[in-house]
Amino acid sequence: MQMNKAPSALQALAQALQRLPGVGEKTAHRMAWHFLQHDREGALLLARSLTQACELVGHCSRCNTLSQLPVCDVCSDPNRDSSVLCVVESSSDQDMIEKTGLYHGLYFVLSGAVKPLDGVGVQSSGLTQLIARIQQNSADISVSAATLSTSAPSTPVKELVIATSFTASGEVTAHAVAQAVKGLDLRVTRLSKGVPAGSELEYVDLSSLAHSLSERKPLS
Amino acid sequence: MQMNKAPSALQALAQALQRLPGVGEKTAHRMAWHFLQHDREGALLLARSLTQACELVGHCSRCNTLSQLPVCDVCSDPNRDSSVLCVVESSSDQDMIEKTGLYHGLYFVLSGAVKPLDGVGVQSSGLTQLIARIQQNSADISVSAATLSTSAPSTPVKELVIATSFTASGEVTAHAVAQAVKGLDLRVTRLSKGVPAGSELEYVDLSSLAHSLSERKPLS
Repeated sequence: MQMNKAPSALQALAQALQRLPGVGEKTAHRMAWHFLQHDREGALLLARSLTQACELVGHCSRCNTLSQLPVCDVCSDPNRDSSVLCVVESSSDQDMIEKTGLYHGLYFVLSGAVKPLDGVGVQSSGLTQLIARIQQNSADISVSAATLSTSAPSTPVKELVIATSFTASGEVTAHAVAQAVKGLDLRVTRLSKGVPAGSELEYVDLSSLAHSLSERKPLS
Repeated sequence: MQMNKAPSALQALAQALQRLPGVGEKTAHRMAWHFLQHDREGALLLARSLTQACELVGHCSRCNTLSQLPVCDVCSDPNRDSSVLCVVESSSDQDMIEKTGLYHGLYFVLSGAVKPLDGVGVQSSGLTQLIARIQQNSADISVSAATLSTSAPSTPVKELVIATSFTASGEVTAHAVAQAVKGLDLRVTRLSKGVPAGSELEYVDLSSLAHSLSERKPLS
């Protein structure tokens, strides 16, 4: 006499699917059934893509974004203004800012927002690396920057644009970044609040994001 | 000079994630970023689970449900009443009926609902296999059935419970099943329609209320 239950490989798959953000037990089962009933080809394609992405995609050694190259396309582009550095919480936020087409500086991608309640402190969010990144090419202070114009990639960082989300943890992160760079000779700016408060950058419409980028204000 | 775009393995992963039901472009990108940034272990676990499930999980030769064995646990259980056969659209619907704990008969899982507009006809939904399944053990008509009691697994099918969804395609499927088994000596039943348990009459849709009114039952 056997137990009446779903086959174990199916259970294991449903369990694994719950590692996807926003996917609960019910949705995971539905996805698992869908794959096995209707789209095994898709399931195998996804399996291959996951493995390949994990193998091939690493982090850019300069800006920490997800990249297949040791130094990402943005960091190695000589046409970007290296005197302006934009701090974002994730590669997806960076992608959104790139899509506005208004920003021509470089980026620094944190390992996520500072979340003291979840045990993600200033250290683990990558602030130390950010300081190192800023100090990296501040040997010669010759070229005047602070305008979004074309310049050589070795220009020292003159402006730090804090582009963390306008959520609680994003604001905490912005504050932590501002505190951390206090001693450095930098103009520190923050995206303007044309963006509705409480929303995540990733889901904001492009025109609001473009406005808040062009109207960024100095942080006193 | 290079294009500023997300790395291609990441793009491929986001594309593959869109094979998941209910996942669009934006969600897929978010999932891909989440995996690579925060949960590579989960990504590899999902990849392994997908491959294994595709390898191990097949279909039960009797009821067509997803199963790791040639004949599934339910079909090979001698305690199930084989005189009652419940027709469902998918293994997930079967799972829901199992969870009620009220049904002790066997199942037949269609390959999906009949959807004439999507090119899914009577043939591809598995109705031919259903007829074959019903006729399979109707050699000896000796044991009286039609009650949900314990009996031997070779009893001929006496009752067919049509448990397709109450959606347009589910109703079409129910009709197609009923038509297909017309010539056979069977009691054909359908799940009752009505007001969902725990709901306030005020918020129930009119068609459910109309059905529950016309199918009202005497209170003993």
